[in-house]
Amino acid sequence: MVLRTGEQYLEAISHRSKAEIFVMGKEVDDVTKNPFLKPSVMAFKATYDAAWDEDSKDLGRAWSQFLNEEVNRFTHIHRSPEDLAAKVKLLRKISHKVGACFQRCVGFDALNTLYITTSIMAEKGRKDYHQRFVEYLTHVQKEDIALAGAMTDAKGVRTLKPHEQPHPDVYVKVNQVTKDGIYVSGAKANITGVAASEEIIVLPTRAMTKEDKDYAVAFAIPLDTEGVKIVVGRQLNDARRFEGGDIDGLPYFYNHEGLVIFDNVFVPMDRVFMLGDWEFSGTLVEIFSAYHRQGYGGCKAGLADVIIGSASNLARQNGVEKASHIQDKLTEAVFLTETMYAAGIAASLNAVKVGDAWWVNPMHANVTKHLVTRFPSEITKITTDIAGGMLGTAPSEWDLKNPKLRGYIEKYMQGMMDYSAEDRLRMTRLLENTSLGVAFMIESVHGAGSPAAQRIMFSRLYDFNYAEEVAKRLAGIKSDVKFVKKPEPWRESDTEKVAKS
Amino acid sequence: MVLRTGEQYLEAISHRSKAEIFVMGKEVDDVTKNPFLKPSVMAFKATYDAAWDEDSKDLGRAWSQFLNEEVNRFTHIHRSPEDLAAKVKLLRKISHKVGACFQRCVGFDALNTLYITTSIMAEKGRKDYHQRFVEYLTHVQKEDIALAGAMTDAKGVRTLKPHEQPHPDVYVKVNQVTKDGIYVSGAKANITGVAASEEIIVLPTRAMTKEDKDYAVAFAIPLDTEGVKIVVGRQLNDARRFEGGDIDGLPYFYNHEGLVIFDNVFVPMDRVFMLGDWEFSGTLVEIFSAYHRQGYGGCKAGLADVIIGSASNLARQNGVEKASHIQDKLTEAVFLTETMYAAGIAASLNAVKVGDAWWVNPMHANVTKHLVTRFPSEITKITTDIAGGMLGTAPSEWDLKNPKLRGYIEKYMQGMMDYSAEDRLRMTRLLENTSLGVAFMIESVHGAGSPAAQRIMFSRLYDFNYAEEVAKRLAGIKSDVKFVKKPEPWRESDTEKVAKS
Amino acid sequence: MVLRTGEQYLEAISHRSKAEIFVMGKEVDDVTKNPFLKPSVMAFKATYDAAWDEDSKDLGRAWSQFLNEEVNRFTHIHRSPEDLAAKVKLLRKISHKVGACFQRCVGFDALNTLYITTSIMAEKGRKDYHQRFVEYLTHVQKEDIALAGAMTDAKGVRTLKPHEQPHPDVYVKVNQVTKDGIYVSGAKANITGVAASEEIIVLPTRAMTKEDKDYAVAFAIPLDTEGVKIVVGRQLNDARRFEGGDIDGLPYFYNHEGLVIFDNVFVPMDRVFMLGDWEFSGTLVEIFSAYHRQGYGGCKAGLADVIIGSASNLARQNGVEKASHIQDKLTEAVFLTETMYAAGIAASLNAVKVGDAWWVNPMHANVTKHLVTRFPSEITKITTDIAGGMLGTAPSEWDLKNPKLRGYIEKYMQGMMDYSAEDRLRMTRLLENTSLGVAFMIESVHGAGSPAAQRIMFSRLYDFNYAEEVAKRLAGIKSDVKFVKKPEPWRESDTEKVAKS
Amino acid sequence: MVLRTGEQYLEAISHRSKAEIFVMGKEVDDVTKNPFLKPSVMAFKATYDAAWDEDSKDLGRAWSQFLNEEVNRFTHIHRSPEDLAAKVKLLRKISHKVGACFQRCVGFDALNTLYITTSIMAEKGRKDYHQRFVEYLTHVQKEDIALAGAMTDAKGVRTLKPHEQPHPDVYVKVNQVTKDGIYVSGAKANITGVAASEEIIVLPTRAMTKEDKDYAVAFAIPLDTEGVKIVVGRQLNDARRFEGGDIDGLPYFYNHEGLVIFDNVFVPMDRVFMLGDWEFSGTLVEIFSAYHRQGYGGCKAGLADVIIGSASNLARQNGVEKASHIQDKLTEAVFLTETMYAAGIAASLNAVKVGDAWWVNPMHANVTKHLVTRFPSEITKITTDIAGGMLGTAPSEWDLKNPKLRGYIEKYMQGMMDYSAEDRLRMTRLLENTSLGVAFMIESVHGAGSPAAQRIMFSRLYDFNYAEEVAKRLAGIKSDVKFVKKPEPWRESDTEKVAKS
Repeated sequence: MVLRTGEQYLEAISHRSKAEIFVMGKEVDDVTKNPFLKPSVMAFKATYDAAWDEDSKDLGRAWSQFLNEEVNRFTHIHRSPEDLAAKVKLLRKISHKVGACFQRCVGFDALNTLYITTSIMAEKGRKDYHQRFVEYLTHVQKEDIALAGAMTDAKGVRTLKPHEQPHPDVYVKVNQVTKDGIYVSGAKANITGVAASEEIIVLPTRAMTKEDKDYAVAFAIPLDTEGVKIVVGRQLNDARRFEGGDIDGLPYFYNHEGLVIFDNVFVPMDRVFMLGDWEFSGTLVEIFSAYHRQGYGGCKAGLADVIIGSASNLARQNGVEKASHIQDKLTEAVFLTETMYAAGIAASLNAVKVGDAWWVNPMHANVTKHLVTRFPSEITKITTDIAGGMLGTAPSEWDLKNPKLRGYIEKYMQGMMDYSAEDRLRMTRLLENTSLGVAFMIESVHGAGSPAAQRIMFSRLYDFNYAEEVAKRLAGIKSDVKFVKKPEPWRESDTEKVAKS
Repeated sequence: MVLRTGEQYLEAISHRSKAEIFVMGKEVDDVTKNPFLKPSVMAFKATYDAAWDEDSKDLGRAWSQFLNEEVNRFTHIHRSPEDLAAKVKLLRKISHKVGACFQRCVGFDALNTLYITTSIMAEKGRKDYHQRFVEYLTHVQKEDIALAGAMTDAKGVRTLKPHEQPHPDVYVKVNQVTKDGIYVSGAKANITGVAASEEIIVLPTRAMTKEDKDYAVAFAIPLDTEGVKIVVGRQLNDARRFEGGDIDGLPYFYNHEGLVIFDNVFVPMDRVFMLGDWEFSGTLVEIFSAYHRQGYGGCKAGLADVIIGSASNLARQNGVEKASHIQDKLTEAVFLTETMYAAGIAASLNAVKVGDAWWVNPMHANVTKHLVTRFPSEITKITTDIAGGMLGTAPSEWDLKNPKLRGYIEKYMQGMMDYSAEDRLRMTRLLENTSLGVAFMIESVHGAGSPAAQRIMFSRLYDFNYAEEVAKRLAGIKSDVKFVKKPEPWRESDTEKVAKS
Repeated sequence: MVLRTGEQYLEAISHRSKAEIFVMGKEVDDVTKNPFLKPSVMAFKATYDAAWDEDSKDLGRAWSQFLNEEVNRFTHIHRSPEDLAAKVKLLRKISHKVGACFQRCVGFDALNTLYITTSIMAEKGRKDYHQRFVEYLTHVQKEDIALAGAMTDAKGVRTLKPHEQPHPDVYVKVNQVTKDGIYVSGAKANITGVAASEEIIVLPTRAMTKEDKDYAVAFAIPLDTEGVKIVVGRQLNDARRFEGGDIDGLPYFYNHEGLVIFDNVFVPMDRVFMLGDWEFSGTLVEIFSAYHRQGYGGCKAGLADVIIGSASNLARQNGVEKASHIQDKLTEAVFLTETMYAAGIAASLNAVKVGDAWWVNPMHANVTKHLVTRFPSEITKITTDIAGGMLGTAPSEWDLKNPKLRGYIEKYMQGMMDYSAEDRLRMTRLLENTSLGVAFMIESVHGAGSPAAQRIMFSRLYDFNYAEEVAKRLAGIKSDVKFVKKPEPWRESDTEKVAKS
Repeated sequence: MVLRTGEQYLEAISHRSKAEIFVMGKEVDDVTKNPFLKPSVMAFKATYDAAWDEDSKDLGRAWSQFLNEEVNRFTHIHRSPEDLAAKVKLLRKISHKVGACFQRCVGFDALNTLYITTSIMAEKGRKDYHQRFVEYLTHVQKEDIALAGAMTDAKGVRTLKPHEQPHPDVYVKVNQVTKDGIYVSGAKANITGVAASEEIIVLPTRAMTKEDKDYAVAFAIPLDTEGVKIVVGRQLNDARRFEGGDIDGLPYFYNHEGLVIFDNVFVPMDRVFMLGDWEFSGTLVEIFSAYHRQGYGGCKAGLADVIIGSASNLARQNGVEKASHIQDKLTEAVFLTETMYAAGIAASLNAVKVGDAWWVNPMHANVTKHLVTRFPSEITKITTDIAGGMLGTAPSEWDLKNPKLRGYIEKYMQGMMDYSAEDRLRMTRLLENTSLGVAFMIESVHGAGSPAAQRIMFSRLYDFNYAEEVAKRLAGIKSDVKFVKKPEPWRESDTEKVAKS
């Protein structure tokens, strides 16, 4: 059986010795022991556990068409709309287990993206990549590898193209090509879960022009490849993890992002999946983005469930859970949550077939992510309201643990008698760390593309001409444009056209 | 072939002579000629044309499991999630043809509701209804009958139950039961398309108690049954239709609602589908509501397309279609529209099987409708902004047609040279009548249940206990409640439980 | 005493015989008798009554510094912040009397704008205009003249300047200048209350360049000047006014806008207040806009009060006024209303002195109007929700008046017993005609400048550089820009600078 | 001169030795040196500096009617609407200096509240309190004392009154009254700035009944009174302050809240301002709330300026400051900010005189705070969008300071060439700590009363009956209620009535 358990993942990641990882300026020995990173590792581990836990294993596994056996779903190439829906459902489910981002989706979506993109490239005569990639994929499935996906470049001056930048490698760049492989330099930013993974798949971050062809590169390498350096980013409340407590800092599960630096790193040729093929970088980005935007309908809805549950419980501890305005606010949060989820489900079940794989519906996927750029902060506004001012003023766990203060805090921080002050502090901290944390408040906005990126897609995917013709006909305006049959103009994206051509 | 053409429908409706229909206090002879009602008839007709038009006939027809031949989809019992999705897609498509409500969904949803509800009743030992209903259904499919569905009662004092009302028949009530049939009195309000239909299916409007059992009644009768009176309701801009013009009043397509009065009306027993079975009225309402809420994701998205097309065209006529703020506003309208549609698609493809029929996903269906209670007015705000003040101040078509004024208006009302002032007036009127009309601004809020009705469903369908347990576990709060596997607690509705039990 | 009564105004307007006014293609004899216009005349009349009614005369009158006696406030030049606040309070009060726009503010604001602008021009050496204008103002105050203000031009192609237009007079243009006066052609659109007024003040609509100097013109003329033609615009539900009823069409009070055409109209030189002074047209527009935007905090809040009152009463008639969700919705509408009003009050009391007159605070005035572009449609959404579906489906008054139907309607349209069905219909129609009418839904967006116009002002009035310096200092970024004292950078507008220079 | 400098305040607070203050479980020696509290002390100090800084001293000082000399405005009793406006302007100004809450407003508002409340009590025959209070006030003004105000009790079970609670002192309670003074126990929660102040004014937190009279108590005591214990609350990112850096944790200015415990504390009688007068506790709370809600229009607008400045500068560093969507987003943030400010200004200048002092306009003050419960999170959503994902992923200052990494970070974190990577990190941290910090995201919601508290005031302050009568008259509904003159019904609060009676 190729399926790893969570423990096997932990064991492997703990022994991945050579990777250069920095947290707050210091190099990290073992990510499974580092107080900053351990919660991230534990959240990543949940993607392995999900394939074994009774309540999720039907979603957590999939049948590989390549190995002809069960693999972890996070390494699977989607073969049906139901596969896509299973992804969304699984993500919601795992969010309930960890209350954080579990960081394995970028790699998952990168696999599916490269599968389709290299197929399209093969149809256009660039044949090697697809076969190489399928071999790599087989390796990933067999070993059940923990993958990070790295797309966003450092970018430097936003208004300049890669080759125009003052620092030429603020986009990852091929320095040299040899028979055996390539040498690359540059940096990828905001890379989710990278310190908790074993390999990185690198993808280009934007459509390129011919002048940028040295930047049109996709590849995979182990994290501990020479020349790779990882600088883990700061997050709201991160420093609390060093305090050694078990309440205030949510030490069990969290996520991280990192800056990944490539200092003339060698990549063997059998791990190179795009090299100078600038014409395909736009297609690759569009395919990836839609996959990744769909997933947010699952994971962020699941995180919202945790936040709703926290607020609901705090209302109960405060004795106000039956107040009509509290119930109405919770209901609003449910509506917002289920809207995000519904859009993710639509993006899955109303999918598009590309070759022998299934891509999400691009309009619905963009709708999903755009909802996710807006609704989490609405939910946070609601739950902040329900929680009360204590969310920003509650004593620390160290006050509770100080014998001089404990009695006072037990009395004055208690709400309803069937919960203790400690229960109230614990739930308050959970809500603080989830509802105001990076995963809900910032990643929801910027992950898988900032709001403006979805808006560009809306204007491209929607058929304004068709809508105007519909209107002209109803207004009685004569026009020589025929009322042509266009069954679903709003679904026809450029990528689909490429895919079909 | 049992499929009617639009012309056949027109012919039939024009000869349905005896129905007592009042418009603005006057009795109507022929609804196909009455200026107020003709646009409604023409919009209803589009549901027949849809089964024949090249660009919609694949959606407009379905294979009847009862007749074993093709029927109009509006008479079909859903046999798959794809059937449900086809409904949503068809509704969006027909909206593009008529820019209004085409009024045949209530009857459509009533058929499916009675099919499931009578099945459930049969399982519980009330066996006659289902067979009776299937016979009626077969008749409807064979004749391709234009059906109205009547659910909302006059209601009187909202805080009182039916049997407590000062006027005992403000809810439709069974006066007498004989061997051959029943006698009913009362009134149903806000009945969509009733004057353009041939028969009415009457359903109870709320869960009932035993004391209300005389109100737990469902049946079907022809519109021209003795004792039935229809009072057509007023609408924004309705009076313009009597002016005889062809621009300002949108004379081609619209919709109407009516008050349907039953003054001791006889219903033969083979048309009675519920009689005193008060325990099932709640289930019936829940099944119907979810079906009807799902549909709004299609028809209102389609109407929004017409409105977006109108605004986009007016921006073009004004020469500002490339201004970034105009493009951003149109994009926002697209996002809102596609969100409503995506939810409707999710409600369809993530459906629930009940017996041999498919019901929609109740959570997604409620999400769909709740979005529809909010987003249309957002879209109207946007398109009002884009259209400019002229939307509320443009000259009438009679000014344009006055030779003394025509020259001035042609000059001063023109925008870009490739459109005439008449084009601009026509498009302005279309936008006024659609974006501010009853179908978009009022029916979107109240049709298929007011916002509060969906909110009640959200709090019933969402599993708050589960969410709290998830949160308690993550907060480290000890609790004796197990973290039980509940694969999708948010999908399990009371109706599903009833349906499965 | 120079103060006119409402009756005196009616008498005067009824005898203003020569004006060429068209309504729906037909020329109007007497605006006080025309069914379309009479409600507008009655609403305009309320501005005269306000100076006499016990509950408003303290606000409705002001002491003229020119006549040294009491004048109607609508002809007054503001001499203090309290004067500006009295304007806002008066507008809210009159809205309660008429439930519509009373159409005299544009003229009011035009007077104040010309007073300040001609002062500024005098300081810059263009001395004649101010004295001419003060003479005209004295005439207006003495006769208590009903003024319309005309600013918005027809505009043609929005992206072209006046002199670049295909039709050269889509902006009002000076054709010829003689010793005695000037000849002008063109059209002003969306002119509020014009058919109910006696004279029109014409102002330029935008900043001009030298090439546009023939368009930089301001003047006043009687409505019945030869060559002036008025085409009254259509509005939602306008046609109901011709039915002769007293419920459905709100026949008592409304407002109108008109297209005003100038066909080589002669203006005597003593009524010309700007002629070719293109450098001052931008200043004039900015001064006017801010005055007009401030006023919306009064009139639209007052209209919102009417709408809230209607919805509150309908809730009572339905028996649900105590439901917590109804109360919460009404409270939300109150909050939105009072926010608009508070901003209008701030714009008044935090005013700016320019010469011997007081201008509003431009930032607060723009805030006021921008709120008004958003909140009315929110209020309409809320009150539509509260009113129930009947808002779009209630029977007509003609049904109620038909003896065959009256009994049914009295029974089925009644809610609580202490109100009749007629009461319910009346209140429903009031809410329909106000909440969905032009004044609330369209004029709120476009009157006094579309939303984009306020946003341009926000970015000009706000000191982003100062805000960045504040941030840089707090972030510890070294920068050579000093942290200069700028007591209230956000209040310093270009116009203020012009005014002070 | 009684005005202290900032340095004098620091000196005093540093020697206030005996206060028992706990931070994260440890007792604090000197708050001016404690890393957690020092930023709060520095922010509090800014209220002293404001009376001396050139750009604020005109706002920062006021003329005392009691001492007949200049005092710090934070100890002043308002004598005019302009005084109230000066408060709002001063708060906005100081926010620009510290980018945080400066914590002296609660004490300021408590002084004004007690001044008015004790006057009202004196009119009702409870004469001692007012004179006592004026003596205390004189002392505060003369010594320019740093005051905290303590209102919110621990509250326990929210649905129970004080005397019904399981723990009887979860509301502060008088244990014993002697000739010389009183003994109190209990806890006040969420007390702003308490550890940085010298004395605490304690006020009751809600309207009381006779049974609660032991809880109707107001008094002032020095912080270092025996039996007083302060437990400082946690905040987002608090632990970073212990790292010793100068970038990530914003070490210069912040604010804090604390739990203040009273363990049988003695209060001398000349510091007791209410004792058992339960009938006046509701009035006191209403007066205080409105004062405190008004102030938020200044301080939160000022904090928003800092956040807008940060986002504007980050856009510049990224090279996208001219992109139309960025400009539009910044403009939206300006609009939201200026709306909060405008409401605060209206609440000040449209004030209400009570005795010889001025109270704010209660409706506008509640509008101000309610806006503040909503708009800050909107602004955060906008600035999070503008800042980019780096807001949640940027490297720490320790990475920048590590020589192994510095070169990489300087290259890859740099945007436009005229700013360094360090500049970008600094500005990112400022935005993170302000826009997502407690003061903007949580205190904005709960400070001065949660959203529900304002909504209760809206429904009390707004005259629904008047609005319904207005509507009935316009609808033509006969009713025996006269259309009574009520000049501004929406301004008449219960407190005003009490105040006037």
